[in-house]
Amino acid sequence: MKKILVINGPNLNMLGKREPDIYGALTLEQINAGLKSEAQKLNCNIDFYQSNCEGELCTAIHEAMGRYQGIIINPGAYTHTSIALRDALASVDVPAIEVHISNIHKREEFRHHSYTAASCIGQICGLGADGYLYALMKLVKSCD
Amino acid sequence: MKKILVINGPNLNMLGKREPDIYGALTLEQINAGLKSEAQKLNCNIDFYQSNCEGELCTAIHEAMGRYQGIIINPGAYTHTSIALRDALASVDVPAIEVHISNIHKREEFRHHSYTAASCIGQICGLGADGYLYALMKLVKSCD
Amino acid sequence: MKKILVINGPNLNMLGKREPDIYGALTLEQINAGLKSEAQKLNCNIDFYQSNCEGELCTAIHEAMGRYQGIIINPGAYTHTSIALRDALASVDVPAIEVHISNIHKREEFRHHSYTAASCIGQICGLGADGYLYALMKLVKSCD
Amino acid sequence: MKKILVINGPNLNMLGKREPDIYGALTLEQINAGLKSEAQKLNCNIDFYQSNCEGELCTAIHEAMGRYQGIIINPGAYTHTSIALRDALASVDVPAIEVHISNIHKREEFRHHSYTAASCIGQICGLGADGYLYALMKLVKSCD
Amino acid sequence: MKKILVINGPNLNMLGKREPDIYGALTLEQINAGLKSEAQKLNCNIDFYQSNCEGELCTAIHEAMGRYQGIIINPGAYTHTSIALRDALASVDVPAIEVHISNIHKREEFRHHSYTAASCIGQICGLGADGYLYALMKLVKSCD
Amino acid sequence: MKKILVINGPNLNMLGKREPDIYGALTLEQINAGLKSEAQKLNCNIDFYQSNCEGELCTAIHEAMGRYQGIIINPGAYTHTSIALRDALASVDVPAIEVHISNIHKREEFRHHSYTAASCIGQICGLGADGYLYALMKLVKSCD
Amino acid sequence: MKKILVINGPNLNMLGKREPDIYGALTLEQINAGLKSEAQKLNCNIDFYQSNCEGELCTAIHEAMGRYQGIIINPGAYTHTSIALRDALASVDVPAIEVHISNIHKREEFRHHSYTAASCIGQICGLGADGYLYALMKLVKSCD
Amino acid sequence: MKKILVINGPNLNMLGKREPDIYGALTLEQINAGLKSEAQKLNCNIDFYQSNCEGELCTAIHEAMGRYQGIIINPGAYTHTSIALRDALASVDVPAIEVHISNIHKREEFRHHSYTAASCIGQICGLGADGYLYALMKLVKSCD
Amino acid sequence: MKKILVINGPNLNMLGKREPDIYGALTLEQINAGLKSEAQKLNCNIDFYQSNCEGELCTAIHEAMGRYQGIIINPGAYTHTSIALRDALASVDVPAIEVHISNIHKREEFRHHSYTAASCIGQICGLGADGYLYALMKLVKSCD
Amino acid sequence: MKKILVINGPNLNMLGKREPDIYGALTLEQINAGLKSEAQKLNCNIDFYQSNCEGELCTAIHEAMGRYQGIIINPGAYTHTSIALRDALASVDVPAIEVHISNIHKREEFRHHSYTAASCIGQICGLGADGYLYALMKLVKSCD
Amino acid sequence: MKKILVINGPNLNMLGKREPDIYGALTLEQINAGLKSEAQKLNCNIDFYQSNCEGELCTAIHEAMGRYQGIIINPGAYTHTSIALRDALASVDVPAIEVHISNIHKREEFRHHSYTAASCIGQICGLGADGYLYALMKLVKSCD
Amino acid sequence: MKKILVINGPNLNMLGKREPDIYGALTLEQINAGLKSEAQKLNCNIDFYQSNCEGELCTAIHEAMGRYQGIIINPGAYTHTSIALRDALASVDVPAIEVHISNIHKREEFRHHSYTAASCIGQICGLGADGYLYALMKLVKSCD
Repeated sequence: MKKILVINGPNLNMLGKREPDIYGALTLEQINAGLKSEAQKLNCNIDFYQSNCEGELCTAIHEAMGRYQGIIINPGAYTHTSIALRDALASVDVPAIEVHISNIHKREEFRHHSYTAASCIGQICGLGADGYLYALMKLVKSCD
Repeated sequence: MKKILVINGPNLNMLGKREPDIYGALTLEQINAGLKSEAQKLNCNIDFYQSNCEGELCTAIHEAMGRYQGIIINPGAYTHTSIALRDALASVDVPAIEVHISNIHKREEFRHHSYTAASCIGQICGLGADGYLYALMKLVKSCD
Repeated sequence: MKKILVINGPNLNMLGKREPDIYGALTLEQINAGLKSEAQKLNCNIDFYQSNCEGELCTAIHEAMGRYQGIIINPGAYTHTSIALRDALASVDVPAIEVHISNIHKREEFRHHSYTAASCIGQICGLGADGYLYALMKLVKSCD
Repeated sequence: MKKILVINGPNLNMLGKREPDIYGALTLEQINAGLKSEAQKLNCNIDFYQSNCEGELCTAIHEAMGRYQGIIINPGAYTHTSIALRDALASVDVPAIEVHISNIHKREEFRHHSYTAASCIGQICGLGADGYLYALMKLVKSCD
Repeated sequence: MKKILVINGPNLNMLGKREPDIYGALTLEQINAGLKSEAQKLNCNIDFYQSNCEGELCTAIHEAMGRYQGIIINPGAYTHTSIALRDALASVDVPAIEVHISNIHKREEFRHHSYTAASCIGQICGLGADGYLYALMKLVKSCD
Repeated sequence: MKKILVINGPNLNMLGKREPDIYGALTLEQINAGLKSEAQKLNCNIDFYQSNCEGELCTAIHEAMGRYQGIIINPGAYTHTSIALRDALASVDVPAIEVHISNIHKREEFRHHSYTAASCIGQICGLGADGYLYALMKLVKSCD
Repeated sequence: MKKILVINGPNLNMLGKREPDIYGALTLEQINAGLKSEAQKLNCNIDFYQSNCEGELCTAIHEAMGRYQGIIINPGAYTHTSIALRDALASVDVPAIEVHISNIHKREEFRHHSYTAASCIGQICGLGADGYLYALMKLVKSCD
Repeated sequence: MKKILVINGPNLNMLGKREPDIYGALTLEQINAGLKSEAQKLNCNIDFYQSNCEGELCTAIHEAMGRYQGIIINPGAYTHTSIALRDALASVDVPAIEVHISNIHKREEFRHHSYTAASCIGQICGLGADGYLYALMKLVKSCD
Repeated sequence: MKKILVINGPNLNMLGKREPDIYGALTLEQINAGLKSEAQKLNCNIDFYQSNCEGELCTAIHEAMGRYQGIIINPGAYTHTSIALRDALASVDVPAIEVHISNIHKREEFRHHSYTAASCIGQICGLGADGYLYALMKLVKSCD
Repeated sequence: MKKILVINGPNLNMLGKREPDIYGALTLEQINAGLKSEAQKLNCNIDFYQSNCEGELCTAIHEAMGRYQGIIINPGAYTHTSIALRDALASVDVPAIEVHISNIHKREEFRHHSYTAASCIGQICGLGADGYLYALMKLVKSCD
Repeated sequence: MKKILVINGPNLNMLGKREPDIYGALTLEQINAGLKSEAQKLNCNIDFYQSNCEGELCTAIHEAMGRYQGIIINPGAYTHTSIALRDALASVDVPAIEVHISNIHKREEFRHHSYTAASCIGQICGLGADGYLYALMKLVKSCD
Repeated sequence: MKKILVINGPNLNMLGKREPDIYGALTLEQINAGLKSEAQKLNCNIDFYQSNCEGELCTAIHEAMGRYQGIIINPGAYTHTSIALRDALASVDVPAIEVHISNIHKREEFRHHSYTAASCIGQICGLGADGYLYALMKLVKSCD
C-alpha cells in the first residue's frame, strides 16, 4: 500500500486564522482531514507534517526517503527563499509536487519565483485546498 | 449542463511530434480525447480550440464569454510574453486555469515567469496531460 | 479631402464589456461613431480597423501608406511588447499618434513603457475616448 | 467661470531659444498667448506660472487648491526625477494633465519614465504646443 | 493590564559580546532589564523571547495572538531575507514595531531593505537600545 | 539650554489636508504645537522650519551648525532622491534623526530607499506624529 | 532534389519601400528572384513564405517538417520577442539558419538579443540580401 | 575682454567647514579669490555664483547666455540626480566645463555617474581647487 | 592542545546518499573519520556538528567562542542565502574557513555568491573532502 | 588584386585540439588552407594572423589599414569583453566581418553579446569553418 | 629634477588617423611633442610610452615605481574593462592622473564607467590634448 | 615524476611590494621558493610562470598540455574579466586549481565573481601563500 507524506511549511499552521481573503477559511486540520478521507478512497496511506523551521522541513524530507512513495509539499514563504529545501528535495529519490493554496502570480513580485519547484515534478497553485488533492491523485497514479 | 473550453496555444499542435522528452509522447488529439471522456464522467460538455496566433487566442477567449462556464488554457510560449492574452482573460467573466504540461521551473529562466497566470484563478505545471484533467475537475466543481 | 485611419489593437473590441472601472462604459462602436461625427465637422474622412492580431495590425499599417494622411493607433497590450508594430509604423510615411484610454502610468509597471510611441509623433493617454479626438484634431491640422 | 492654471517647469522659459529642433521655435510667451485666446473661446480663465525650482512648483500646486478647477503641468526634466512633484499633485484635489512638447519616447531612455504622470489624469506628449490646448479642452470638459 | 512581547532574532543574544562599535556594549539582558523597568512605569507587562531560528520566531509570533497587545521585534539578519517572518507578522492581529539597534542605512546595501517592516506599523533604527523603549511607548499608547 | 531644530520637507505643509488615510488628520501646525509642549517638559527649546525647496532645506541644515544641538528632519519625497540633502546633513556636526509619519515600507518600492538616513544617526517611520517626539527625546538624551 | 523554404517575418514585405538606409533598396520580390536563380545553380528547389503574423510563421515552420530539408528564416522584429517562434523551430527536425539584412548589433540595444537563433544552427546578419544566399549555400551543403 | 562664470552647487558654500578629508581645508571664498587672481593673469573677467537650489542654478545658467563666454560648473550632488541642470546647460550656447574637487570615482557608486557632464565639453575631478583653474585656462583658450 | 570545530550545514547529512556525481560517494561520517585521523597527526582535537537549521548553526558558532581556536564550516545552501550565519561568524573571535565539496562556480548562478565567506578568512571549493583537510591544516598553522 | 586579412583571436590556435563537440575537428591550419584555396578561385590574396593577445590583435588591425581591402575576424572570447578591439576596428577604414565557428546563441548567456560586431559590417556564427568562406565571398564582392 | 611618465593605451597610436570628429586631428607624436615642450617650461623631464596591450601597460606602470614622480595615463578602452590596470596603478606609490581626450560622458553608456580612475588622484576628460597638459601641471605642482 | 605548472597573472610580480595589508609581505620569488621546497617533499617537479598579459597566460596554458599533469593558476584581476582564460583552461586536458592569496569575498563586489573558476576543478582563496601549497597537494594526489 502506497504512502504519501504531506509537508506544510511556515505559517500554514495559521490557515483559517490568517488572512482568509487570501488563504480561505479552512484550517490545516480540516484540509488534512479532507485529504485523509480522499486518500482512503485512493487506497493509500497519508501522513502529515508541519513545521515553521526550514531545517526541520529539510530533515522531514530526508526521512521520507525509503518510507514514502511521494511528497506533497507546500513550502510557504520558503518557496521563494530556500535553496536548502530545493537541495533537500533533490537529495531524495521521492517524487514531490509543490502546492500553493493561493495564486502566487497575483501577489507580490517576490512570490512569483520558486526555488523549490525545480526539484519537484510539478507545481499547483491557486486552486485552494483542492491543489493538495490533485497532487495526491497524481502521485498515486505515478506510483502505479 | 456545464460547458468548458480548452484552449491550447502555439506549437501545442505539435505535441507528440515535438521534443517528447520535454512534452511526452501523447498527441494533442489523444489528450483531448482523454479529456472528453473524463468530461462525460463529470457530466459536462467540453470543447477544444488550438491556434498558434496570439490574436486568435484572444478572440477565442472573448467569444467564450456567455457561452462557457470555464476556460482551461495552455498559452504555451505566449505565457511568458503576452500581455494581450493576460488582458483578454481579464476582460471576460469566465474563470480560467492555466496548464503547462512540462515543469516550466526546470527550464530556461525566461519560462519561469507567467504574464497570463495573474488573470487565472490558478496554474498547474509539470503534471503532464493530467494537468488538464485537474483543471477540469476544479472548474466543474467551482461552477457548482 | 483628408483621410485618417483609426486602428485599435487587442481586446479593444471588448470596450464597454471589459473592466469599466479602467476603460469606461463606452463600447468601441460608440467611440467610433462619436469620432466619425467629429471628423465630419473637421471635414475629413475617417475609417476604422480593429484586430487582436499583431500581424494583421502590421498589415493594416502597411496598407495605409498612400491611402491615408494619418493614423491614430491604440496598440493596446502590444504597446509594451511589440517591436513588430514599432517597425511597421516606422516603415510607412504616414504620421501616427498613439492613444491610450486609460492612464498607463497608474497601472502595472510593465505598462509604463511603450515600444510603439517612438515611431509615432506623440502619445496621449488617460483622457478616455477624447484622446482619439485630440489625435484626430492634431493629424488634421498637421496635414494642412 | 472655470479657472485653469498652466504650470511650466525647469528650462521651459527657454522655449524658442533652446534646441528648436526638439522643442520648436515658439517662445513660452507665444504659447501662453495662444492658449489664453483659446481659453476665451472655451469660456474659461487661464493663469500661467513658470519656475525652474522643484519646490516652488510644489508650492504653486498647493496654492491651486480651491482656486483652480484644473492644472495643466509640463514638469520638464522633473518629470523623470521628482517624487516631490508627484506627491504635490496627489495632495490637492485638482485634476491635472501632464503635457510634454516633444515626444519623450524618442529621446534618451531616462526620459521615458514619468514619476508625475501617475498623479495626473493623463499625459500628452509630442504634439508640440497643441498638447496644452488639448489638455485645456479636456479639463474644461471634465469640469462641466 | 496590557501585555507586550519583545522578540529578538538571530545573534542578538551576542549583544555586548559582538562588534560593540556597531551594536554597543550593552548585553541583551541589560537591555531587557532596562525595558522591564520602563514597562512598569508605563503600567504594562512585558515578556522577552530570543531565538536564532527563523521558524521558532514565526511560532513565537503566532503564539502571541490573543495573549499580547503588541509585539516589538528586532528580526536581526532575518529582516533582509525572511518572507516567512513577514507572513507570520501579517498572520496575527497584534500590532508590531520593528527595531534595529544600529542604523541599517549606514551599513552594507543588502541591509537597507526590510521584508518584515511592511507587516509592522513602523520601524525604528539607529537609536540603540532606546529604539525598544520608543516602540514600547508607542504600542502602549496605541492600545489605549 | 538645548536647542533642537525640526525640519519638514516638501508637501508636509499639506498635512491634514492631504491624503489623511496615509498621513493622518493632524496639520503640521498641530504636530508642531504638540512637539513644542513636549519640548518644554524636556526642558529644551525647539524651532520649526518647513520648505518645499531642496536647496532651502540644505541651507537650513547648514545654518543649524553652531546654533542647534540636534536636527529632526522629515525630508518627505526628497528622502528618496536627494543626495544634496544627504551631503548637507553630513556637512554639519549636528546629530540628526530622520522621521517619516507613514510606514514607507508599505508604500511604492521607490519609497523604500533613503539617501538621507545614512547621514543621520537613525530613522523612525510609521509611528505617525509620535515619531517626531521620540526623535526629540533621543536627541535631548544624547546631548546630555 | 533538395527543397529549401525561405520564411520572412513581419515588415519584410515592405523591403525596398521602408527605410532604405537600413535595409537597402531591393524589394523582397527582387531578393527572392535572385535567390531562386542561385538555387537553380545549386540544383535545389526553393519556396518562399512571408507573413506579418507570429502564429502563421509558427504554422509555416510546422508544415515544413517532412517537406523541406532546410529553412532560411528572417524573423524580423519577432527575433527579439518571440519564444513561440523559438519553440516552433525547435519542434521540427529541419535545420534552420537565421538571417538579418541589417547589422542588428549597430542598432537599438533591444535588437542585439535573439530568442530564435538558439533554435537555429547559426545566424548571419549585416550582409544584406547576400545573407540569404550564404544560408542557402550552407543548407544545401549540409544536406549532402 | 572675456567673461567667465563660475557656478557652484549645493553644499559647496560649506567648503573648508565640511569633511576636510574629502574636500580639503580651503573655503569657497579662498578658492574664488585664487581663481580671480589667476583670471587677471589670463586677462579675463570672472564672476561667481553659488546656490543650493537646483532651480536657481538653472536660472543662473540661462542668464549666462549672451553675457559670458564660458561656464565653470561644480554641480555638487546635483551632478548625479539633475536632468534639469543637464537641460539647462544644453539650452544655452555657452561652453561649460564640469569640475569636482574630490575624485568621485573613489566614492559611493551613486557618485560615479554624471547627468550634467554630457552637456559640458568635459569634466575634471579629483584635482582639488586646481580643477577650477584648469577649466578656466581651457575656456579662455577655447574662446580665442 | 588546539581544538577545531567542524560545522556542516543543511543536507550535508545526506552526503554519499545524495547526488554522488556532484558530491562524491563518501558519507559525512566517513569524511569526519578521515579528518579525525588527520587531526591526530596534526596534534589537535576536532569536534563535529551538523544541523539542517540555520538558527542552530548560528548557536553552534556562538558556543564555539572561547572553546575552539578555529571553525571549519560548510554552510551548504545557506552560503547563498544566510546573512544570519554571516553575522554569527562575525560575532565570535574564532577564525573560520568556508569549505564546499563541489565547485560552486560550475553550478547554478545563484550558487556563485557567498554571504558567509566575507566573515571567514578564506574559502575552499571543489576539492572534495580534501577541502576540509586543507582548512584544518591552515587553522592549525594559524593558531601557532 | 584584392587582399584580405583573416584574424583569429584567443584559443583559436587550439582548434581541432579543443572541445571538438563545440568547435569541430578541423585545425586552424586546415581551415586556413581551405580558405586559401577558395581565395585563389575568387582571385584574391589572403593572409592569416592569429594571436591570443588583445593588444596584438589591435595592432594587427591597425596595420591592415592601407594594406588590405577587407578583414575577417574571429575575436574569440574577446568578442564579449573587448572594447579595445571594437575601437581598433572602428579606427581603420577597412571593412570587417565577424565570424564565429559555433553558434554563440546556444551557449552561456555572456557569449550572446558582441562588443566587436558593432564595428563590423556584419556577423556570421554557427556555420562552422564555412563562416569564414562566406565572409570572404562578401568582402571580395564588396570590394568590386 | 622631476620625472613624469605619460602612458597611452590601446588605439591611441591611431590618433589623428582615427575618427577625427571624436578624437581630433593631432597625432600622438604631435601631442607628445607639445607636452615635451611644456614640460621643459615646467622644469621637468617627461617620457612617453604607448602600448595596445593591457599586460604591457601594467608592466610599464610597475616599472615607473622609483623612477618617476607621477604618471599621466590615458587607458583608452581599458578604462572601462580593466581591473588589472586598476590594480597596477594601486600597486605603485606613484600618483597618477587619468586623461581622456574625448568626453566619455557624451558617448556610449559603457564608456561612462571607469575602473582605473579609482586608483588615480583624479580624471580629466573632454578637454582634448590639453587634458594631458593640465595633468602634467598638477603632478608637477603636487611633487613640490 | 609528476610535473606541475604554477601560473601567476597580472600584478602578482608586485607581491611583497604592493599593498601588504591585502596581499602579505612575501614576494612572489619567496612564495615560489617555498613551493619548490614543498614540491620536492611531495616528489614532484614544479615550474613557474608569471605574466601581466592575458594573451601570454592563455599561451602558457596551451603549452602546458602534454607537458604538465596539473596547473595552479592565480589569474589575478583577469579572474573577474577574462573569458579568454576561461576558454584556455577549458581547451587543455590538464586539471587546474584557482588560487587567490586574499579573500576576494571581503573586497569590492566586482571581485566576487570568477570567470575562470568554472574551468578549474576548484578554487582556494584567502589562505595566503598556503593556498598554492594546498592546490599542489591536491593536484599531486589527483594525479596518482
